[in-house]
Amino acid sequence: MSATVLYMSMSLDGYVAGPNERLDNGLGDNGMRLHDWFFADKDEFGKLSGVNGTVAAEAMATGAVFTGRRTFELGGGWGGDHHDGVPIYVFTRSEPDRTAEKKWPLVTYVTDVATAVAEAKRAAGGKNVMVHGIGTARLALAAGVLDELEIHLVPVLLGQGRRLFPERDAAHIELERTRTIEGEAGITHLHYRVRH
Amino acid sequence: MSATVLYMSMSLDGYVAGPNERLDNGLGDNGMRLHDWFFADKDEFGKLSGVNGTVAAEAMATGAVFTGRRTFELGGGWGGDHHDGVPIYVFTRSEPDRTAEKKWPLVTYVTDVATAVAEAKRAAGGKNVMVHGIGTARLALAAGVLDELEIHLVPVLLGQGRRLFPERDAAHIELERTRTIEGEAGITHLHYRVRH
Repeated sequence: MSATVLYMSMSLDGYVAGPNERLDNGLGDNGMRLHDWFFADKDEFGKLSGVNGTVAAEAMATGAVFTGRRTFELGGGWGGDHHDGVPIYVFTRSEPDRTAEKKWPLVTYVTDVATAVAEAKRAAGGKNVMVHGIGTARLALAAGVLDELEIHLVPVLLGQGRRLFPERDAAHIELERTRTIEGEAGITHLHYRVRH
Repeated sequence: MSATVLYMSMSLDGYVAGPNERLDNGLGDNGMRLHDWFFADKDEFGKLSGVNGTVAAEAMATGAVFTGRRTFELGGGWGGDHHDGVPIYVFTRSEPDRTAEKKWPLVTYVTDVATAVAEAKRAAGGKNVMVHGIGTARLALAAGVLDELEIHLVPVLLGQGRRLFPERDAAHIELERTRTIEGEAGITHLHYRVRH
């Protein structure tokens, strides 16, 4: 069964980016600290080694990407191919961008979250769907279509920045812990399934 | 070597209490969800069993308590004995309460965080010092005298409430992960040492 999964590096105090995010400061001030582990210890082929490498590879083994328009456009549409030629579903509230769709055959704009996720799952061919972007993840969580969370917990307190979980309504969302892995560099990989 | 340790149940989205905390609603709305694990599965002697029981017992094996005046007074001073007759150091900004000190021989009021921690460590006789209360923990962290964190990570997203780590200055505090344990009920016990 295909699942939608959010893969996210988060500090112990809940931040996924430093303060003062801008187009030319995409991770926020010192936000790179959260991603050090991902860029460290690459082998001669540029592949991340060790336990961290194994866990990181799971994200790249997904069969489709579900993202929001902002994340997609800020990333230059990943040149039309996020990884390995898998289809990309872009959620947009406004009129879909048919230019991007025509230019990039892997890209489909969708105006409804549940439909986007359903189409992405179908297109993933049994593999999981990568949920890309914090806003997208929140939309999916609120719509009840985010299935799993893989949190790469980074051993640092940032103090400020962008939170993965800002304040929302007070309804509890129960999770099922499905895996805990101690990675290198103090990274703890926590996997949860959302109880729908 | 004696270490100051904060033991705290926290939801994956960073909350240690639900919203609307009041004197008669001490854990906030539905905040008990964070402590379910602690009150479940007690044996015939009222002792928590399993892995969760082993980890919880560590807090009760501390040799002294360091707390803030508010936590201390809200808890009725624990009748002058938090656990096993260990000394209690109460941080207060205002004039110390000599009445409580006279009534309860284990209780000492201290007006300086660093001094309180130093005295508590000395009094702990080689055991660790329990840091009691979120405000106290933050003071100790800011003063550079919080040594370790034991986070009991609860598999739930509360959405609202009191955060363990509200926004502060942007100085990174680096941690060293020293232990990860999968407990019952989806609780993950994360132990960190603060890199001073």
